[in-house]
Amino acid sequence: MKILIINSGSSSIKYQLMVMPENEVICTGMIDRIGLETSNITFKTASNSYEEILPVHTHKIGLQKVADMLLDAEKGVIKTTSEITAVGHRVVHGGSYFSNTTIITEEVKEKIKELSELAPLHNPAHLVGINVAEEIFSGAKQVAVFDTAFHQTIPVEAYKYAIPNFLLTEHKVRVYGFHGTSHKYVSEKAIGYLEKVSRIITIHLGNGCSMTAVKDGKSIDTTMGFSPANGLVMGTRAGDIDQSVIFYMVKNLGYTPDEVNSILLKQSGMLGLTGYSDLRDIEAKAEEGNKDCQLALLINAYRIRKTIGSYTAALNGLDAIIFTAGIGENSSYMRKLICTDMDYFGIEIDQEKNQIRSKEIREISTVDSKTKVLVVPTDEEYEIANQVFQLLNN
Amino acid sequence: MKILIINSGSSSIKYQLMVMPENEVICTGMIDRIGLETSNITFKTASNSYEEILPVHTHKIGLQKVADMLLDAEKGVIKTTSEITAVGHRVVHGGSYFSNTTIITEEVKEKIKELSELAPLHNPAHLVGINVAEEIFSGAKQVAVFDTAFHQTIPVEAYKYAIPNFLLTEHKVRVYGFHGTSHKYVSEKAIGYLEKVSRIITIHLGNGCSMTAVKDGKSIDTTMGFSPANGLVMGTRAGDIDQSVIFYMVKNLGYTPDEVNSILLKQSGMLGLTGYSDLRDIEAKAEEGNKDCQLALLINAYRIRKTIGSYTAALNGLDAIIFTAGIGENSSYMRKLICTDMDYFGIEIDQEKNQIRSKEIREISTVDSKTKVLVVPTDEEYEIANQVFQLLNN
Repeated sequence: MKILIINSGSSSIKYQLMVMPENEVICTGMIDRIGLETSNITFKTASNSYEEILPVHTHKIGLQKVADMLLDAEKGVIKTTSEITAVGHRVVHGGSYFSNTTIITEEVKEKIKELSELAPLHNPAHLVGINVAEEIFSGAKQVAVFDTAFHQTIPVEAYKYAIPNFLLTEHKVRVYGFHGTSHKYVSEKAIGYLEKVSRIITIHLGNGCSMTAVKDGKSIDTTMGFSPANGLVMGTRAGDIDQSVIFYMVKNLGYTPDEVNSILLKQSGMLGLTGYSDLRDIEAKAEEGNKDCQLALLINAYRIRKTIGSYTAALNGLDAIIFTAGIGENSSYMRKLICTDMDYFGIEIDQEKNQIRSKEIREISTVDSKTKVLVVPTDEEYEIANQVFQLLNN
Repeated sequence: MKILIINSGSSSIKYQLMVMPENEVICTGMIDRIGLETSNITFKTASNSYEEILPVHTHKIGLQKVADMLLDAEKGVIKTTSEITAVGHRVVHGGSYFSNTTIITEEVKEKIKELSELAPLHNPAHLVGINVAEEIFSGAKQVAVFDTAFHQTIPVEAYKYAIPNFLLTEHKVRVYGFHGTSHKYVSEKAIGYLEKVSRIITIHLGNGCSMTAVKDGKSIDTTMGFSPANGLVMGTRAGDIDQSVIFYMVKNLGYTPDEVNSILLKQSGMLGLTGYSDLRDIEAKAEEGNKDCQLALLINAYRIRKTIGSYTAALNGLDAIIFTAGIGENSSYMRKLICTDMDYFGIEIDQEKNQIRSKEIREISTVDSKTKVLVVPTDEEYEIANQVFQLLNN
C-alpha cells in the first residue's frame, strides 16, 4: 500500500511517499518558509529531482502543491489521490493520552489541540497539516504517530517531578520525552542485530539530542522531559541547567522570562559555548586549536558519559549503547570522545571501525568490549510508515 | 587553642566553642528567631544545659548574648574573650575566589559582600556575624570557611553550563556546589578508614541533599550547582527539573517568577509529593501504606541511584559510597532503597549492619561487596575548627 508521510512544522512541510511493506521510497521532498514569498519546494524520485522557489502562503497551498507534484502528468508518481491508502502524520506531543499510533478521529484531533499548550510550536502546525490532508487525500486513512508514545512506558518514579502534586494531576506537568520514533526504531534494530540484549542505551544526537534507557524493548527513562529543552547539550539548547540561573537572570540581570527562555533555547548549547551551532564546524575549529570549541565538545561528551552511567544504574546493567541521528551516525570524533575512559562500563571502541562511514547498521566496539557499541542509522519516515502499515493491517 | 565557630544565618546564630587540636567541645548552642520578641537561646556544656526565651532584636545583641554566656561567672566557660584564639565563620558562598579557608581581611569581606548576589539569604547574614564578632572578639583571628571551597577543584567541563559565555565571564554563572565542608570531612574520614580508595561518592542527605564525586580526595563533580536548589530531591526543594516547567508556570498558569521560585524551593521536594517534609514522618506513613509517601521515597532513591551511576562514569570506577547527614546517617530504609538493584556497581549492603545505629563510622556493605558502603557521621563544626586550626598553625 502507498503511504504518504507528512511532518508538518510551523513553517514547513516534509513529505515522503512510500510503498509498504516493501519499504520502497517513491518520492520525498519538502516545502519550507511557508508564509513567505520565497518558499523552497523540493521533489525527488529515484529518477528525478526537482526544485523551485515560489510564494507559498499557507499550509493548505503547500500541501495542495505537494499533491499537484505527486499527480503531475509528466514528473508525477500517482494518477489519483485515491491511490494513497493512508497519510501518516508525525505528531510531536501525544501527552499521556497516546501510547500507540492512532487513527485520527475528531476526538484525537481534540486531544492534539488540547496538548498544544504543551507543544505550542508543533501541535498547532500538525493540526493544520491533518486538516488539509483530510481534504486533499479524502479517501485515505489519516494516522497520527506520536514522538512521545514510545516513552509512555516510563515508570512513575522516573516521569514524576518532585513538585506539588497538583501540577501533575491538574496541569499534566511530567516527563514526556521526545524523539520516541527514533529511539524505538534504533533500539528495535539493535535488538534484531545483536540478539539477546535487554539493556540498551540509545543516544540520538542530531539538531536535538536525547538519550533513552531501553529495557526489554521498552523505554524506562529519557533525558528530555516536559519539553524538548532539557537533558543533553544541543546545537542551540542548553539542556540541563540549575533552575536558579533563570531566576537570577530575571531578578539580577533584568531579562524577562520569555527572553531567558529564548536564550536557553536559541542562543545556548554549542552555539552559546562556541559561536557555532553546526558540529562539523565546531570539530574543524577544535582541531585547529580553538579552545572554546574543544571545551564545548568535552562538556557535551561529559554529559553524555554521565547519562550512560545514570541509565546503567536505572537498568542495573548495560548490554549495548547505540549512536544514531546526524551527529551520532557521522561524527567519529564525538563517538570517540564519549567512549573514552568508559572501561568500567565495558565500553571499548575499535578506532578503525569507528572511522567507517556507512548507511548500514554497524558494530564499532572491539571484539572484547563487554558492552556492544553500535551505530544505527535512524529512519523515522520508515518507522512512521511501518507503524501506519502495522496499524492498518491489524 | 580555643576556637569559636559561628554559623550566622538570616535569623539565627549557631555557635560552638572547641579546643583544638584536642577536638574537645566546651560548649554549643544557638539563638534563633533573631528580630522577634521570642528568640530561643540555648547554651550547653558537658555539665550544664541552659535555655531561655528573650527578645533578641539584632545579630549584634545575639552575639553579645553568646559572649555574656561564655563569660558568665557562674555557668561560663572562659574568663575573658581574649582566651579565644580564633573565630571560624561558616560562609556559604565563596564563589570562584576562595578554594581554601581564609583569614578575613577587609578585602575578603568585600568579596563575601560581592557574592551576596549569588547567595542573598546567606552571605549578608555571615557578614553581619563577622562584623559583630570582630568587635566582640577583637583579639581573635577571624577566619572564613566556605561551603563552596571544596568544590573549586571541579574541572571546567563539569562546572560550565551550556549557555552563552558572557554569563560565566561577566556574571559568574557556573556550578559552585555546596555542603563542601561535609563532603570534604566525610570523604577524608572514609579514605582514612578504608585506605587505598581513590574513587568515592559522598551522599549527604539532610535538610538539603547533595552528592559529590571525589577522586583522590578532590571534588570533581557535585549535584548542587549555581545555587543549592538543584540536584537531588530534598525536604522542600524540587531538585532537578526541566526548566521549561518554569516558563510554562509563568506563561500558562499565571505565576510570577518569584512565586515559581518559592514553590520550587519551599513547597516542592518531599513536601510537594507527600504533604510532609520530615523523612521520619514519610517513612512511617509509607510503612502504613500511604501511596504518595511510598512513591516519594522511590523517586528520591531513584534519583540518587542514577547519580551514583553518573558519578561512576565521571570517576570511571567506584571504590566506595558514603552516606552522611541526618537522613544518610539514620535512615536504614533510605539506604536500603538506594542500594537495591545496584549489583552492577558492586554495591551490596548487609541488612543487619544497615540496621545498626551508631555515632561511629561504620561499613554496612557485605564482605563480598566490591564497592564499600560506609556510614560516616558528618561533623561540620569539627571540620571548620580543624581547618581554622590548620590554617593558623601553618
